[in-house]
Amino acid sequence: MNRKAFQDLYPDEFCHCYGCGRLNEHGLQMKSYWDGDDAVAVFEPRAHHTGISGYVYGGLIASLIDCHCIGTASAAKHRSENPDRDAEMLPRFVTAALHVDYLRPTPLGVPLEVRAQAEEIKGRKVIVAATLSAKGEICARGRVVAVQMPRNMKSAE
Amino acid sequence: MNRKAFQDLYPDEFCHCYGCGRLNEHGLQMKSYWDGDDAVAVFEPRAHHTGISGYVYGGLIASLIDCHCIGTASAAKHRSENPDRDAEMLPRFVTAALHVDYLRPTPLGVPLEVRAQAEEIKGRKVIVAATLSAKGEICARGRVVAVQMPRNMKSAE
Repeated sequence: MNRKAFQDLYPDEFCHCYGCGRLNEHGLQMKSYWDGDDAVAVFEPRAHHTGISGYVYGGLIASLIDCHCIGTASAAKHRSENPDRDAEMLPRFVTAALHVDYLRPTPLGVPLEVRAQAEEIKGRKVIVAATLSAKGEICARGRVVAVQMPRNMKSAE
Repeated sequence: MNRKAFQDLYPDEFCHCYGCGRLNEHGLQMKSYWDGDDAVAVFEPRAHHTGISGYVYGGLIASLIDCHCIGTASAAKHRSENPDRDAEMLPRFVTAALHVDYLRPTPLGVPLEVRAQAEEIKGRKVIVAATLSAKGEICARGRVVAVQMPRNMKSAE
């Protein structure tokens, strides 16, 4: 795995995301890394991240898939253009569409692995597919349409 | 609007959801109500619920759409079977699939309105469509496939 998480390579201005921003002290601070051609993130939900008691909240699952796929889109776009060079900074992508299929209840109290692959890179758009697993069993599948942030969309703060 | 939120009519055992459970003190405690044939919820994100600074985190938008559509599925199922009687308790649904299209950045610092309609009720499955608006402008559209909880799926705690 790379030494730095994808999300830690976003410019400081774009590091306040609740799901994955290193500068959001109240956030989840999710981190994604390359593992060969897959991108992987591991996150252990807290006790209050429950849906039905004992199982993980579906909105958190959607959030983990979203942030991980956005990071994967960014890293995959960089890698497609710079196959031989690790990124020092990554472009920021935003979510155009998010789809999650919940296959089975996701148990609380264990680390979750989100694993993703960039399926298509076309200009500023990247499509990423992901699975979310607990104890080696796939609990949810996701798909994100990620779009590289328009240059005229600045952070509002 | 009804006097009680849909989520406050779930049995106590199923009221720990991070997004909408009244018994989850760390959660968002989202509340949904009938407004004619629409179901409506209003939620104002906190300052740390940011994606790009100044805009709402996409994972929170997915969470709000998820919980509101699940509540709407439950209330719509009850209403379809009891057109003349307000619910005293509602059945708990879970999410089979969630889709969100993000149409434009959602501004932080204002109340968001989520408005949903049950599109199809077929046995234990209900399909719900939703919009999420800020200052009267639709920022995201969602669709949820909700399934009434199987009787053998108990909370694990």
